[in-house]
Amino acid sequence: MSKIPPHAKKVFQGDVYEIYQWPQQMFDGTVKTFEVAKRLPGVSIIATHQDKIVILHQRQPNTDWHHTLPGGYMDKPGENPLEAAERELLEETGLKSEQIFHWKTYNPGGRLDSDLHFFIAPNCQKIAEQSLDGGEEIVVQFVDFEEFLEFAHHENFHSRSLIIEMLKAKLDPNHKNEFKKLIFKE
Amino acid sequence: MSKIPPHAKKVFQGDVYEIYQWPQQMFDGTVKTFEVAKRLPGVSIIATHQDKIVILHQRQPNTDWHHTLPGGYMDKPGENPLEAAERELLEETGLKSEQIFHWKTYNPGGRLDSDLHFFIAPNCQKIAEQSLDGGEEIVVQFVDFEEFLEFAHHENFHSRSLIIEMLKAKLDPNHKNEFKKLIFKE
Repeated sequence: MSKIPPHAKKVFQGDVYEIYQWPQQMFDGTVKTFEVAKRLPGVSIIATHQDKIVILHQRQPNTDWHHTLPGGYMDKPGENPLEAAERELLEETGLKSEQIFHWKTYNPGGRLDSDLHFFIAPNCQKIAEQSLDGGEEIVVQFVDFEEFLEFAHHENFHSRSLIIEMLKAKLDPNHKNEFKKLIFKE
Repeated sequence: MSKIPPHAKKVFQGDVYEIYQWPQQMFDGTVKTFEVAKRLPGVSIIATHQDKIVILHQRQPNTDWHHTLPGGYMDKPGENPLEAAERELLEETGLKSEQIFHWKTYNPGGRLDSDLHFFIAPNCQKIAEQSLDGGEEIVVQFVDFEEFLEFAHHENFHSRSLIIEMLKAKLDPNHKNEFKKLIFKE
């Protein structure tokens, strides 16, 4: 990816985005202005309860209903990714896992610097009611592992880095077994 | 996706990004500022020459070597997607197709409004030498259809929407046949 160098200048500060520009020397010695957007990091959680995986059916103001994993932007100052993942999972589903762990961090790279931290929350217990803010309508659904993998083919499932993992699991029985073990911490 | 409404205010104009903000009414009647980045649209071309598909091995200033399809941002004023696709293909590879057509447009949605227009350029002929700018180093490679699908598993192949198509083709023989026919215009 196009890493933002230390001498880059922040030319915009918003709520979600920062824009950086810098003079970049090209291969032929000429100099061009490069521009990269840095977006608030996000968290996304694969949570399981007994033998089921949590999928949210949700809409936000000016989006249609779509399916996602629990998660959201890290917009609370001082909160680390684990804390954000635990908070989002609890608010959106009322669930908590004593075994939650960081799985991987995805960043699209190129002109967009945006970390998405994936967590796995095995063996969740329901410890509270859902607690949504005014910008969320969320129905919590529980699906088994095979149904979960089929979400890779849903038009309205919006998690491309996860879809790639799901399709790879469908292609390779060993990968599929490993993925299932990882999620359910068997 | 979070569509940018007509009353949104442009709060930043850069070379690659525009940032829009607007007051969004939430489900509970409260109002929150929403922020979306609009990025220059891009084009990406699946080009074939005889029974091979064109893959670029390239690096840009401050990126590592990686594999991509021919393509780029639409940064020439007044140019439409088809013109941009023909120009990028010609500059990066020296190839031209008389049968080039628009395949699909991908937009990640959410807080990023960024059209990526995919074109298919069957039966290309070499009509010129590669003509790169100072920010490109590109080696043109030709791979057969099976090798092409394997790029879905390469760590440094950077086209997630295409990777999803490739993995789906690998999963379903019918899908695979249709995809091959589409690309080679057989």
